[in-house]
Amino acid sequence: MNQMRNALLIVGSIAFDTIETPAGGVEKALGGSAVYASLAARRFVRPCVVGVVGDDFGAERLEVLSDRGIDTRGIEHARGDTFHWKGRYHENMKDRDTLSTCLNVFENFNPKIPDDYRKCRYVFLGNIDPVLQARVLDQVGETALVGLDTMNFWIKSSPDALRAVMKRIDVLFINDEEAIELSGERSILRASETILGLGPRYLVVKQGEYGALLFGEGACLSVPGILLPGVVDPTGAGDAFAGGFCGYAASQEAADRRTLARALLAGTVMASFTVEGFSVDNLLHLSERQLTGRFSQLEAMMRY
Amino acid sequence: MNQMRNALLIVGSIAFDTIETPAGGVEKALGGSAVYASLAARRFVRPCVVGVVGDDFGAERLEVLSDRGIDTRGIEHARGDTFHWKGRYHENMKDRDTLSTCLNVFENFNPKIPDDYRKCRYVFLGNIDPVLQARVLDQVGETALVGLDTMNFWIKSSPDALRAVMKRIDVLFINDEEAIELSGERSILRASETILGLGPRYLVVKQGEYGALLFGEGACLSVPGILLPGVVDPTGAGDAFAGGFCGYAASQEAADRRTLARALLAGTVMASFTVEGFSVDNLLHLSERQLTGRFSQLEAMMRY
Repeated sequence: MNQMRNALLIVGSIAFDTIETPAGGVEKALGGSAVYASLAARRFVRPCVVGVVGDDFGAERLEVLSDRGIDTRGIEHARGDTFHWKGRYHENMKDRDTLSTCLNVFENFNPKIPDDYRKCRYVFLGNIDPVLQARVLDQVGETALVGLDTMNFWIKSSPDALRAVMKRIDVLFINDEEAIELSGERSILRASETILGLGPRYLVVKQGEYGALLFGEGACLSVPGILLPGVVDPTGAGDAFAGGFCGYAASQEAADRRTLARALLAGTVMASFTVEGFSVDNLLHLSERQLTGRFSQLEAMMRY
Repeated sequence: MNQMRNALLIVGSIAFDTIETPAGGVEKALGGSAVYASLAARRFVRPCVVGVVGDDFGAERLEVLSDRGIDTRGIEHARGDTFHWKGRYHENMKDRDTLSTCLNVFENFNPKIPDDYRKCRYVFLGNIDPVLQARVLDQVGETALVGLDTMNFWIKSSPDALRAVMKRIDVLFINDEEAIELSGERSILRASETILGLGPRYLVVKQGEYGALLFGEGACLSVPGILLPGVVDPTGAGDAFAGGFCGYAASQEAADRRTLARALLAGTVMASFTVEGFSVDNLLHLSERQLTGRFSQLEAMMRY
């Protein structure tokens, strides 16, 4: 199937999130890395999602995704409840406490990639166990770009598995604290050199409200954060960033530096919308015009 | 004197700094806002410094400045000791504890602007009492650009005097925390709107290692921080930033948006060198080639 050439395979968690922030809260709202990433990526490309949901994840929830051009045939239905995360954000909208994590059906998640998904040349591995991320790569054919997200938890608990899968990817997405922890260095500059030495061709360091950096091919590119009047819910910002980045990259002919530079803008734009609403609300409803407007706003901040 | 047209008048503190950082320390090293700012500005323009020193500030100290093209005739010599600040930086190289502040001759500083300095069309008011900053403006003629630095201390203790002098300036330099405090807003976007409503034509928000933002004329421009392998001493970074910014602006024909955009880069470059050495060491010794190299590095980070 030639149409799969530029499709983006996304593997990650699908969850219900119960979230409290200084701006309010939501209960059992749609969440998970694969959900945020695919809702961001679908602005540029057709995402093919692999994940697992439980009996409590009704058809109407799936339609939220499939109605928006997301291929949900790779979502497995297992007996039990869907992954449920409860968290509360502090006043600064950065730090958060996890109130409860019920893995439920996600505990035994073992990604099975449907046959026609295996032809996807673009892959985004959401933030899950690096052992599972590697199993995804075992099942796909030749790729043009593989992006991988991870977090402190895997850096600490599964360093060897993480290092092994890092040798097989093109772009690693982490935040600045994670870059320091993963590398053991004290500056982002040194951390980037160490991490690129571990395998990935490119490294994206997310800096929260301050923007992001793209390292690779001997260069460093910076994108500022988009200035927002206020943040409502930071959940999923990193997933939407990576989804927007990989989705934009998959929509282009070549995954070269020029494409990845534009992808950095796309990730920034998608993350900015995400944090302005609860759960995936803004990713569901934002218009083409809002999207274009924010790209222009970002470009204006860099026009010298 | 026509040569004063593009000269930059700099008024601020002249100090001895005793500094401890995780990278080491220095005792009674050259410091103060006027010193950092003029050593940064002299790369672009002739700075005319107004400040006060004590009996312990020898001729050899003044020569450090005058040998580098800085006009020191406006530096007043008073009976007593020079301002002496002692501080210790935390592991993160951001937070610091003031161990002692001996104002000495600086306590009764009342800036007197020499006659030929009054023709300077570019003025930088370093971080001192806003009442004194206003007295400087009372003494100068028509200006092309007035920059002003301030800090939390004056925002809290002298809000009325600060607001009064803010109506008379072109560019306010503050960091992001100060912007939030000064405006009473919760986001930098809203803070910038509120602060520009208080008088200045432009606002520069410094974001430490993440770079800086320039607001004004309905637009926002971002510059990333220069990635450094390590920080040695953060003292004076803000002063060097403002000195570099105002110095570059003074070297150009018009203080328009194009000039101020380049000035934002100049400030970033000068601040980056400053923090890589103790006290003013790097500002004294950096070569033209190092300077040009860092401008190129910064521009490469923004080349899309």
